[in-house]
Amino acid sequence: MITSVSKRMTFSAGHRIFNPEYSDDKNRQIFGDCSNPSGHGHNYILEVTLTGPVDPETGMIINLKEMKAILQNEIVNKVDHKNLNLDVPFMKDIIPTTENLAAAIWNILDDKFGAEMLTRLVLWESENNKVEITR
Amino acid sequence: MITSVSKRMTFSAGHRIFNPEYSDDKNRQIFGDCSNPSGHGHNYILEVTLTGPVDPETGMIINLKEMKAILQNEIVNKVDHKNLNLDVPFMKDIIPTTENLAAAIWNILDDKFGAEMLTRLVLWESENNKVEITR
Amino acid sequence: MITSVSKRMTFSAGHRIFNPEYSDDKNRQIFGDCSNPSGHGHNYILEVTLTGPVDPETGMIINLKEMKAILQNEIVNKVDHKNLNLDVPFMKDIIPTTENLAAAIWNILDDKFGAEMLTRLVLWESENNKVEITR
Amino acid sequence: MITSVSKRMTFSAGHRIFNPEYSDDKNRQIFGDCSNPSGHGHNYILEVTLTGPVDPETGMIINLKEMKAILQNEIVNKVDHKNLNLDVPFMKDIIPTTENLAAAIWNILDDKFGAEMLTRLVLWESENNKVEITR
Amino acid sequence: MITSVSKRMTFSAGHRIFNPEYSDDKNRQIFGDCSNPSGHGHNYILEVTLTGPVDPETGMIINLKEMKAILQNEIVNKVDHKNLNLDVPFMKDIIPTTENLAAAIWNILDDKFGAEMLTRLVLWESENNKVEITR
Amino acid sequence: MITSVSKRMTFSAGHRIFNPEYSDDKNRQIFGDCSNPSGHGHNYILEVTLTGPVDPETGMIINLKEMKAILQNEIVNKVDHKNLNLDVPFMKDIIPTTENLAAAIWNILDDKFGAEMLTRLVLWESENNKVEITR
Repeated sequence: MITSVSKRMTFSAGHRIFNPEYSDDKNRQIFGDCSNPSGHGHNYILEVTLTGPVDPETGMIINLKEMKAILQNEIVNKVDHKNLNLDVPFMKDIIPTTENLAAAIWNILDDKFGAEMLTRLVLWESENNKVEITR
Repeated sequence: MITSVSKRMTFSAGHRIFNPEYSDDKNRQIFGDCSNPSGHGHNYILEVTLTGPVDPETGMIINLKEMKAILQNEIVNKVDHKNLNLDVPFMKDIIPTTENLAAAIWNILDDKFGAEMLTRLVLWESENNKVEITR
Repeated sequence: MITSVSKRMTFSAGHRIFNPEYSDDKNRQIFGDCSNPSGHGHNYILEVTLTGPVDPETGMIINLKEMKAILQNEIVNKVDHKNLNLDVPFMKDIIPTTENLAAAIWNILDDKFGAEMLTRLVLWESENNKVEITR
Repeated sequence: MITSVSKRMTFSAGHRIFNPEYSDDKNRQIFGDCSNPSGHGHNYILEVTLTGPVDPETGMIINLKEMKAILQNEIVNKVDHKNLNLDVPFMKDIIPTTENLAAAIWNILDDKFGAEMLTRLVLWESENNKVEITR
Repeated sequence: MITSVSKRMTFSAGHRIFNPEYSDDKNRQIFGDCSNPSGHGHNYILEVTLTGPVDPETGMIINLKEMKAILQNEIVNKVDHKNLNLDVPFMKDIIPTTENLAAAIWNILDDKFGAEMLTRLVLWESENNKVEITR
Repeated sequence: MITSVSKRMTFSAGHRIFNPEYSDDKNRQIFGDCSNPSGHGHNYILEVTLTGPVDPETGMIINLKEMKAILQNEIVNKVDHKNLNLDVPFMKDIIPTTENLAAAIWNILDDKFGAEMLTRLVLWESENNKVEITR
């Protein structure tokens, strides 16, 4: 019996999807409207899953207040109401696709929670598109 | 018995909320994170409601294909994956709050559908915030 | 201060949208895929709103158990897992658009709850389309 | 053109629905499982709607930060993770049905926002039941 | 670190659940209302998950425009507003339960995306019932 | 190709999160508002997943009517509109965190469906927090 707890957080950010080594035409051809130079944005939903033994004293895998504080401080405060291309150090020189944003968030949380505990991350860019990372 | 039909559409856009006549400090004080100079964005949900007699031949107030085409062409295509401050002619020189964006969309649709038919517009900027316009 | 209580119920039904006095071509032209002769179907969501004084003894406008039983018996049991064109007496000879289905449900509920109490009915045919009836 | 802005907040609370002047049998008969003496609870969703002119300087009816702070301090902090029968002064001696809870919240917000501005309040007790107050 | 991208699509279809080798009574006994001869229908939600390396040039596992076009052409266009028993060649002689429909869709997509890439498919028949296929 | 079917059920319950061996202060420190002595409650969502071969005669892993009846009788009827600390025998002397409640439900369903069939259980306590059990 493997038990996991997941917390859902939301943030809103702007981005432009383009590869600076591509021509404008190639960016438009590959990324379509997402490469629009003045950018657009999304309401992202982040769901982080931690797995581990349930502490018999508390009945919890992790105190959700602690988990929420880490997600708030390490992730949400750094991306919410920000431009992912310009304002977010951990996305510097990274094309801000949902895949890359999810991977960057995963790497930060991997350091915070450890490889045994962090088992899944899901990031929705819209109600129709999401990216999921597992081990 | 008053009958209305509503259609829900979605789009993603970027924006920065600021008044160019305010100082940076005042913009930050009033608009908070929303005035971040490099902008951010949202997944907007637009719900438009039309009211009128039900045609006994078709059982419809309006053909939803026609309604969808108007919303797609007049609104969604003009704002989706755009920056509301820079790319959208009908938002030129307008602070792109949800209130103002909803009003601008209302004015366009009022011309298309007429005052008798267009009775409500709801625009969600996030799952927690929405603006509604009625007559 | 006007207080209303609303109950949400769901049902699944099949239908074909066509006018028997139209040619096949005209049905196809007006109703599109919805006129496909072998039919299709939807998960409908019905939300019924009753308005009235709150009984000081119970703190309720109406007992929700009673309201649910009426909606279940008068509406859901008659349409759930049914074909709206063929199986539902109250839809006989009516084109089963969402507008017409909502009106037929409204008329039944108007008899049950009365004109003072029944104030709104919303019927979703999909997550993007809904019909609303008020007085 | 009437413009409104709505904010959605959530809270979790416990309650028991019973009239202390009724016998246990009558409470059980009228309120069913809701009168279970040891209580149960819900995740409530509160949506408050304010109507008014849009300030041309800010593009806002009200600053959402201000609106959120009032809802948080006046309502959510007083009911979240509380027992509505025992812990909430503004519900003292009131049967905590959704109708009565909505009315009590309405009265508090009416004082804060005023009769011109506060135009609608919706309170969901579950995904299937909600109460709405308007003027 | 395993990365996946998922796309959600919707379609509406009609069906009747019955085994032609069963008697009417046995069909009614096993499939209940779902075996109603004139059929009913649902709004289906399909979520397809593809797994693979993220292309460092694009930051994408697959271009979502390409993924959407395949899902639209190979699946949605063949089932939307159709009767699953009568109109859909890939469901011929198959009882159109959610399990069987999911398997048929899986087999088509397996040919298109390949066994390494297609890792999960979820098909909702209603908000309360879903089928999931993995390897 | 592994096929699973999932059913979603909802219930509302009250609880208080505390360890009787802790002081009031320690309970408050660890469990925060959740340890409020008069309790609070939630609308829980339970999703149970069963995996297995699809019966070629019926096109089903399990008859959903049978699955629903088991979930209704074994779980929902025992917790809905109950206080998890006081009214539910299978939670006696167990701290009613979502982790522990999910585990207790899992153990009951494991007996009913068997280890080969029961493969996942997800329990949401709120729209932002959920617990998942797998093997």
